[in-house]
Amino acid sequence: MSKGVNRQVLLAEKPAGKLGPEHFKMSEAAMAEPGDGEALVRVRYISLDAANRAWMHGATYRAAVEPNTVMAGGGIAEVVTSKAPGLAPGDIVFGDTGWQDYAIVSAKSVSKLPKIDPMTHLLSVYGIAGLTAYFGLLDIGKPKPGETVVVSAAAGSVGSIVGQIAKIRGCRAIGIAGGKDKCNWLTSELGFDAAVDYKDGAVFKALRAAAPDGIDVYFDNVGGDILEACLSLMNNRGRIACCGAISQYDGVPSAHGPRGVPGLIVVKRLIMQGFIVMDFMARRDEALKDLQSWVAAGKLKVQEDVINGLENTPNALIGLLAGENRGKRMIKV
Amino acid sequence: MSKGVNRQVLLAEKPAGKLGPEHFKMSEAAMAEPGDGEALVRVRYISLDAANRAWMHGATYRAAVEPNTVMAGGGIAEVVTSKAPGLAPGDIVFGDTGWQDYAIVSAKSVSKLPKIDPMTHLLSVYGIAGLTAYFGLLDIGKPKPGETVVVSAAAGSVGSIVGQIAKIRGCRAIGIAGGKDKCNWLTSELGFDAAVDYKDGAVFKALRAAAPDGIDVYFDNVGGDILEACLSLMNNRGRIACCGAISQYDGVPSAHGPRGVPGLIVVKRLIMQGFIVMDFMARRDEALKDLQSWVAAGKLKVQEDVINGLENTPNALIGLLAGENRGKRMIKV
Repeated sequence: MSKGVNRQVLLAEKPAGKLGPEHFKMSEAAMAEPGDGEALVRVRYISLDAANRAWMHGATYRAAVEPNTVMAGGGIAEVVTSKAPGLAPGDIVFGDTGWQDYAIVSAKSVSKLPKIDPMTHLLSVYGIAGLTAYFGLLDIGKPKPGETVVVSAAAGSVGSIVGQIAKIRGCRAIGIAGGKDKCNWLTSELGFDAAVDYKDGAVFKALRAAAPDGIDVYFDNVGGDILEACLSLMNNRGRIACCGAISQYDGVPSAHGPRGVPGLIVVKRLIMQGFIVMDFMARRDEALKDLQSWVAAGKLKVQEDVINGLENTPNALIGLLAGENRGKRMIKV
Repeated sequence: MSKGVNRQVLLAEKPAGKLGPEHFKMSEAAMAEPGDGEALVRVRYISLDAANRAWMHGATYRAAVEPNTVMAGGGIAEVVTSKAPGLAPGDIVFGDTGWQDYAIVSAKSVSKLPKIDPMTHLLSVYGIAGLTAYFGLLDIGKPKPGETVVVSAAAGSVGSIVGQIAKIRGCRAIGIAGGKDKCNWLTSELGFDAAVDYKDGAVFKALRAAAPDGIDVYFDNVGGDILEACLSLMNNRGRIACCGAISQYDGVPSAHGPRGVPGLIVVKRLIMQGFIVMDFMARRDEALKDLQSWVAAGKLKVQEDVINGLENTPNALIGLLAGENRGKRMIKV
């Protein structure tokens, strides 16, 4: 890239329906200088997440992304110059860098990361995805050995880790994913006990066959019809960890929620609980210690899907929303 | 009544839509003799509950009520003759007596009650209604002083107690009820801070005005549109105690659940939790101690709606489902 120029991907307009390449545009800005308490960082890897799409709808746990601003997104970056105590050139940080080559970040808004090899693991198993799976399953889902755990978007960055942690904790793990290949991969490579292909007919019947003793913990990444099917199969005192609602993000928001709310919640004494991984950050070290030991012992396999080039970020997100990826998708800038 | 004859109200047929008198019929049976471990009891008061209607749909936390059997229902009864150790003539018990003058009950299926005056309090504030309000609000809703608590069906047996306990615990209490009279009663007699009449236009707007700081705890007795409105107004980390879904019981079951599930549950980190008061029975004494002290101190007002005559039980239930009652409705047999 030419000196002093920062390539950026802007959100061109808010999508009313399905997200397409036309909703983004490439742009160039002059390099900015960090102010006091800030650093200039070079973005190395950009995380792609279904949540990127949710942010376009409006304010969630963060402000909405507005048209003609740099598209928001988490990224791993290296400090180039710093006017912040505690940040030095060469330091590796994670934060909302946005979709661009360089970013000005305040020291408060980023977290310093250890230098590990491969660096990509900082975005997958040791990043938001791994921590989301860890805290969502263990703290919200509270699985006990022998229980049945179901996870949707099971071949995705979070789901693939949820199912493996469930196995590590002695549970029966069932994944719901789109397509035969993903389902085969879950059972043959990642050790899931069963996988249900939601593109292959009625989810309810296949899930009932895969979970003959009912569902004790459902880790929900998708909402919609799959949540409805799981609600029907939950055991008494089951827990539903509400992590996201991918099925609702891309397109016109659904006019209704799943049947069985609140009727089944009452009669089965269910708990549905939403969470945001950021709320658990004070306990990150505890999670990383477990995740690292499982990876080192070969109990937890890390799957990454790395795409080269900032200019490919829009299509990489569009593809992720369509379920293209297996494991953690990211852009190498 | 003539000697040796037991009047009974049978469920004549399962209602497909709205419940009507035609779904019941009066009948007479010969008096039965208790077997070993059983007692013959004379039913004194029959509890009327929205749950009666839910039992007609199918199995819930109990088996469905089948046509041409005695309609199920909780009641307070007095032991006439007993072949069960621990039960003696004159003892007062609570159990599923059904809608009839006399019942044969197994000693295991009933609980012995103290003799208090008035006996009706055993079905209202010291019965299922009071215990449901107590455990549902305090154990599931977990209100903290200064928080805003909203309860639906607020003029009913459970809701009227929920709001008063919320006030005792230092919360802002808002009731949702049908009609101006009920709403006035909640604020002027029971001490609710505000009441919203769901029959008077849009619930969402009125509720937003009544809860300017948002909702921290929603005690849901109704489901449906009111649950949807509350979901939109919940604060981060709010708790929804799912107690029942009256709006869904009488008529054709809803094809959909409320919007915002699971999207709002995720972004607001909400907990929706269902409960059945029977699960808390081991802790009944603890609740009764609090409830009795509040009643004695005049902090908790008890409202009862007692109707005479077994033959009026069907219409009393139909009226309850239509929202006729204020406080705990029961039949004096």
